[in-house]
Amino acid sequence: MDKNLLHSMISGFLSEDVGRGDLTSESIFRKQETGKARLIARDGFVAAGVGSVAAEVFKVQNSAVVTEDPVEDGTRVDPGSLLLTVSGPVVDLLKAERVALNLLQRLSGIATLTASFVERVQGSQVRITDTRKTTPGLRVLEKYAVRVGGGKNHRFNLTDGVLIKDNHIAACGSIVATVERVRENVPHTIRIEVETDTLAQVDECLGCGVDIIMLDNMSPAMMSEAVMKINGRALVEASGGVNIDTIEAIAGSGVDIISIGALTHSAPSCDIGMDWVC
Amino acid sequence: MDKNLLHSMISGFLSEDVGRGDLTSESIFRKQETGKARLIARDGFVAAGVGSVAAEVFKVQNSAVVTEDPVEDGTRVDPGSLLLTVSGPVVDLLKAERVALNLLQRLSGIATLTASFVERVQGSQVRITDTRKTTPGLRVLEKYAVRVGGGKNHRFNLTDGVLIKDNHIAACGSIVATVERVRENVPHTIRIEVETDTLAQVDECLGCGVDIIMLDNMSPAMMSEAVMKINGRALVEASGGVNIDTIEAIAGSGVDIISIGALTHSAPSCDIGMDWVC
Amino acid sequence: MDKNLLHSMISGFLSEDVGRGDLTSESIFRKQETGKARLIARDGFVAAGVGSVAAEVFKVQNSAVVTEDPVEDGTRVDPGSLLLTVSGPVVDLLKAERVALNLLQRLSGIATLTASFVERVQGSQVRITDTRKTTPGLRVLEKYAVRVGGGKNHRFNLTDGVLIKDNHIAACGSIVATVERVRENVPHTIRIEVETDTLAQVDECLGCGVDIIMLDNMSPAMMSEAVMKINGRALVEASGGVNIDTIEAIAGSGVDIISIGALTHSAPSCDIGMDWVC
Amino acid sequence: MDKNLLHSMISGFLSEDVGRGDLTSESIFRKQETGKARLIARDGFVAAGVGSVAAEVFKVQNSAVVTEDPVEDGTRVDPGSLLLTVSGPVVDLLKAERVALNLLQRLSGIATLTASFVERVQGSQVRITDTRKTTPGLRVLEKYAVRVGGGKNHRFNLTDGVLIKDNHIAACGSIVATVERVRENVPHTIRIEVETDTLAQVDECLGCGVDIIMLDNMSPAMMSEAVMKINGRALVEASGGVNIDTIEAIAGSGVDIISIGALTHSAPSCDIGMDWVC
Amino acid sequence: MDKNLLHSMISGFLSEDVGRGDLTSESIFRKQETGKARLIARDGFVAAGVGSVAAEVFKVQNSAVVTEDPVEDGTRVDPGSLLLTVSGPVVDLLKAERVALNLLQRLSGIATLTASFVERVQGSQVRITDTRKTTPGLRVLEKYAVRVGGGKNHRFNLTDGVLIKDNHIAACGSIVATVERVRENVPHTIRIEVETDTLAQVDECLGCGVDIIMLDNMSPAMMSEAVMKINGRALVEASGGVNIDTIEAIAGSGVDIISIGALTHSAPSCDIGMDWVC
Amino acid sequence: MDKNLLHSMISGFLSEDVGRGDLTSESIFRKQETGKARLIARDGFVAAGVGSVAAEVFKVQNSAVVTEDPVEDGTRVDPGSLLLTVSGPVVDLLKAERVALNLLQRLSGIATLTASFVERVQGSQVRITDTRKTTPGLRVLEKYAVRVGGGKNHRFNLTDGVLIKDNHIAACGSIVATVERVRENVPHTIRIEVETDTLAQVDECLGCGVDIIMLDNMSPAMMSEAVMKINGRALVEASGGVNIDTIEAIAGSGVDIISIGALTHSAPSCDIGMDWVC
Repeated sequence: MDKNLLHSMISGFLSEDVGRGDLTSESIFRKQETGKARLIARDGFVAAGVGSVAAEVFKVQNSAVVTEDPVEDGTRVDPGSLLLTVSGPVVDLLKAERVALNLLQRLSGIATLTASFVERVQGSQVRITDTRKTTPGLRVLEKYAVRVGGGKNHRFNLTDGVLIKDNHIAACGSIVATVERVRENVPHTIRIEVETDTLAQVDECLGCGVDIIMLDNMSPAMMSEAVMKINGRALVEASGGVNIDTIEAIAGSGVDIISIGALTHSAPSCDIGMDWVC
Repeated sequence: MDKNLLHSMISGFLSEDVGRGDLTSESIFRKQETGKARLIARDGFVAAGVGSVAAEVFKVQNSAVVTEDPVEDGTRVDPGSLLLTVSGPVVDLLKAERVALNLLQRLSGIATLTASFVERVQGSQVRITDTRKTTPGLRVLEKYAVRVGGGKNHRFNLTDGVLIKDNHIAACGSIVATVERVRENVPHTIRIEVETDTLAQVDECLGCGVDIIMLDNMSPAMMSEAVMKINGRALVEASGGVNIDTIEAIAGSGVDIISIGALTHSAPSCDIGMDWVC
Repeated sequence: MDKNLLHSMISGFLSEDVGRGDLTSESIFRKQETGKARLIARDGFVAAGVGSVAAEVFKVQNSAVVTEDPVEDGTRVDPGSLLLTVSGPVVDLLKAERVALNLLQRLSGIATLTASFVERVQGSQVRITDTRKTTPGLRVLEKYAVRVGGGKNHRFNLTDGVLIKDNHIAACGSIVATVERVRENVPHTIRIEVETDTLAQVDECLGCGVDIIMLDNMSPAMMSEAVMKINGRALVEASGGVNIDTIEAIAGSGVDIISIGALTHSAPSCDIGMDWVC
Repeated sequence: MDKNLLHSMISGFLSEDVGRGDLTSESIFRKQETGKARLIARDGFVAAGVGSVAAEVFKVQNSAVVTEDPVEDGTRVDPGSLLLTVSGPVVDLLKAERVALNLLQRLSGIATLTASFVERVQGSQVRITDTRKTTPGLRVLEKYAVRVGGGKNHRFNLTDGVLIKDNHIAACGSIVATVERVRENVPHTIRIEVETDTLAQVDECLGCGVDIIMLDNMSPAMMSEAVMKINGRALVEASGGVNIDTIEAIAGSGVDIISIGALTHSAPSCDIGMDWVC
Repeated sequence: MDKNLLHSMISGFLSEDVGRGDLTSESIFRKQETGKARLIARDGFVAAGVGSVAAEVFKVQNSAVVTEDPVEDGTRVDPGSLLLTVSGPVVDLLKAERVALNLLQRLSGIATLTASFVERVQGSQVRITDTRKTTPGLRVLEKYAVRVGGGKNHRFNLTDGVLIKDNHIAACGSIVATVERVRENVPHTIRIEVETDTLAQVDECLGCGVDIIMLDNMSPAMMSEAVMKINGRALVEASGGVNIDTIEAIAGSGVDIISIGALTHSAPSCDIGMDWVC
Repeated sequence: MDKNLLHSMISGFLSEDVGRGDLTSESIFRKQETGKARLIARDGFVAAGVGSVAAEVFKVQNSAVVTEDPVEDGTRVDPGSLLLTVSGPVVDLLKAERVALNLLQRLSGIATLTASFVERVQGSQVRITDTRKTTPGLRVLEKYAVRVGGGKNHRFNLTDGVLIKDNHIAACGSIVATVERVRENVPHTIRIEVETDTLAQVDECLGCGVDIIMLDNMSPAMMSEAVMKINGRALVEASGGVNIDTIEAIAGSGVDIISIGALTHSAPSCDIGMDWVC
């Protein structure tokens, strides 16, 4: 994550929650009054965004805040674990608190869910990846959390990857014609991926040098057949209907990549609190 | 929701997902080629953000897109229901699709979860409200979804409401001293709320004319006692440990407001797809 | 005032006055040449925005500028008084000078005018407040200056307060119906205020639990009558036709709040200069 | 005034006053409900910013608002005069009202004060100009109002004009040396102006081809002497201590330009209201 | 090119050139006065950015401007050719003129230079691509112009492509180790490219499945050898020392891609003028 | 160049080239790993933008980067010369490298071309100036490079200078009428310039006190005639058809200013590289 980009995102988030100031706290504390607090895990999870994000929230609010003892991103923490210590002007700690927690709870949730999928396929070579089903405005952070949880990223957006779907194919008449037209137009640095529903489509893809073949909503058996047919001539991505119960069977089919929207759209939030030390 | 504000948020979301353009679709479709598609519910839920948000996403992408037949926000839809029809340049429909769906799935999820809480307290006068535990950058939209689901909003941010917590009180020495200092500083248009853990604190609040007393993590029995003690002299808000199983008991205690962080941080995403008509 | 917000406002003001640079000074001084200057009151007034705003203007222009000896906001200064000493790169002192003075002159003017109203009601409990009749773009600063002068703030904008006026009431048919509809929709943290022209309307307000009753353009005698009628069941705000000659009579009527547009739209500018020490 | 620039300023002003929406009005009116209102002068003044600014505020809020019958900027209106009719969605008229009025009241105030100075020098060739003593963030608009009132503009900011003052001269050792250095560095399209306190300095200026000589805080008699000495070899600008009582004497000295900070920092606000027609 | 992105770029360019308005033209023309003008080629070139960019500049300045008869991007025009007709408010045509011409001259220059390289390799399969040596702030437009001239694009920025250079390799110890580390971290949708100086390095790349091998500053003979060695197992990109005289020999070596910084950093500007029709 | 403005421009340029991060380098280097590199001239030129711009690019990317030994802007360097040493986190050096080089190469190219024109007129008093034919978005920097090369700046944009052209004159009927109208409207701090094609027009200009007379596309002989006719009563600017071969003859005609679009639209890029020290 680029720090300049991160800081400008955090600025926007703080301005949403802080508004023109903290009416309550600024009535009570003088600007210079300092304090110290601890971010504590209230349940167990894979921490994500601690030193990398939450600590930066406090620093963007006021660069005089000191952050210490961050748990390293990717650590599996127990309930009660210390995640981060923050000290500095009380008013700024209070202004940054909620944004820091809201981010940390969501990112740790994503890392934890990702890790649970990754564990299930331990030992295989398969990559677990995210999709574009992320929270609008948070994609950079959520894709980071997927990596923290042991997953990999799929394309970031419509500009940095190619995914040919049925309505693209319908418009050109055939996979071959579509791939040709797209290949003419995209940088050679980007792989061409095609979404397929049938083995016949897989064959078509092989016939025109598609780089990545997505098997959409196929059964594990059908996927195995596709994988054998493809036989290393393209990367194979499984997509659709993936959940914690089906993932092992899918991975067993020999696909290279399994992409899962749920990693980012359905990760439960972790419980984290901020306790004052003084 | 103010339309100018909404449009500027959507602009940012589109720029995140579209980047510099849709590499795939712009290789295939001419700019003027038009099409038509339908947003369809894949499961049952309370729709939120259909005409109000998703339709605007398509219009911000290209004001030439026509949106029709929006299901009214707050409608409980069945799997397979038509939510919205969109028609216009294919490339723009494809560019707006993912952002529109990502928002719709999340907002409908929040409305649906809120509605489930609201149903449980049907018949009572209690208000179900959200908290500041929203997704950074989406607060305006998520609080709208809570209202669509039948809930009400708590303060929006640190500037437009007052909530006195333990570390504020500790700094001033007593609830009375804190309330006095805060009242001196805040506009008379804003009510003063104090978070309490004990009945003694409730008494202190009553002694200094607090407008809203938050009962934090109290048992329903203790809440009942507090409500009787307060006896209409302040609004009473229950907070902490609220879930679908406990909410009826909490409402039964006679509190006026129940605030629930889960409405926005833990609502499951709804499943919605976009199907091409032509 | 939140520092991040303040800095972004100042940035805009500096860019308006500095443009792409100071054509004159940059032709003459090398970037590193330093100097020292003093901001001096040329007449007597209540200083506002000295260390809090003017000093920040110099620092936003160049964080290497040192500011010293700021008179505390709220101090009544005599002609010739030192307000602030600034030292650092001459070019940056010259670039920041005009913006700093323009703000200081206006904010001190507002604080001084506010203080003159506040003095007249010394001894009473009445709150002197501002309105939304502020200079576009400067509301945060102007409302701060009102507080410096001993006044209090009314709602900041249309989102963080409720004020029901005649055309709202006309649309709903009655005060009762209007209040009911509004109460349904606004957060419980915000008081509901209604503007009244007659005692009959005051009665209507009392009948539906209005929190704040604004008496608009009433005579002091009529206000007294209203205050007695209300008898502590709502906050009472006087508005309209308030000036330095009428304010004592208005305060004498027993109202809780007197709101005065003139505080921000008609405060005379104070005279302040910057003198070079070296 | 460039329309794109104007719209972006208005956007900022609306966002300050409207925030996330009009809590009161949006609870009451449906989005499509329409109405009509009139902006009416409550006292007599020279109108400025009617069709040019206030009407645009309503249109930026919602381009569906129709504005009619704008009084032409520069018209001297009587109390009760119709300034502008606006019609469209009630909620948008209410959201734009205060910003439109706040701007109109200030700009008309500036035009009116400027016109009063201009009248005093009717018949002479002298130009009345503004200074950089404008309200931060409003310079474009305030300088427009000066022109509406019959005045002219001085340089806009530090980049588009040159004004050599005493501390510039002190740094270079003499006026001649300063002018030489500046002339080397500035575009030939910009005139060089020097501030003088003494006739000796005026002589120095004449010796090095200064384009504009500012006579700072001189008596009318001394100004006459300076004007005779200069004898058309440079433009002559009077500055400092100008008020409605002294301006005729100053103009009588034969100077070409009189610059007056008060035009923008001390113009009294005009009284304007918005009355609903339906 | 996404239209929303394009418009926001153009807005910035107009604000740079127009500032607060056109001092000259706004003194002369009334806002509504209309006129018509033609953009005419003064020499021969491949037109780029006519309807796609220059026409949009006029429309962003004022959406009331009508643009007609745009020459299609990619057309080779003769001196005197009509490129575009614009009609609308004179002031807006004058405000947009210089930005439109400055962009058109540069983009057409790039397209023309690109076309001259592309012609030289006509008949071969080789792709001519750009690099990141573009003008800061104009990359989207300049890469578009390369495509108009018949070239293709290389990666857009550091985020959407991978290029491993010597200091990356030095840090990891070997090409193999570097590629492995990078492959672990980047999305599977992006090809991995490595810059090589020697045939030994080419061998190393082949040993670890590199997708694109860049031959940096090699002689055509050495390139031929590399191409034969690689034998279709990776895409081959020639880079460095490419000019109009060497390109045929380089293409003859059998490489797949030739990337040329000069396309964007050294394209001569085309001469284009705007003539008034009325 | 104002540093705040410069930094905000650089921020935009970095975000264009860096995107969301450097996919390659961030896979390889830890955030804290440091290195050192040198910017080296690969050919001979007049350096521009070294300490002033390129060094700032590295500092905006990460303020922890140390820049040393900058060659002073305006120095004529030989191939192989050290321009700047940079040290700090490797990842940040790599992220800033391309933007820094792209700017440096262009700005040095402009300074070098300007210097070659300036040399040709050494000894005469003539000013070589730029025009508005700059790269959109880079005008501040490109005009700085012209000054570094020994040239001067013409007006920056349409707001800070007046240039009356034929279609302005046509609209008013005569030069006299046009000048009068414009003079009425523009600040007295700005000189009025008129573009002329004939000696008759020059006479017209002299008759109404035009400050600067532009001789557009006249032969040197005709320019001499114009200069004699004008005889010091206005500044004389030559424009059109200026190149390295014609400039001496043009300067010989006695004009005061020669403006040259090619300085900014046709300066060849200089070759500069970044070499790693460790």
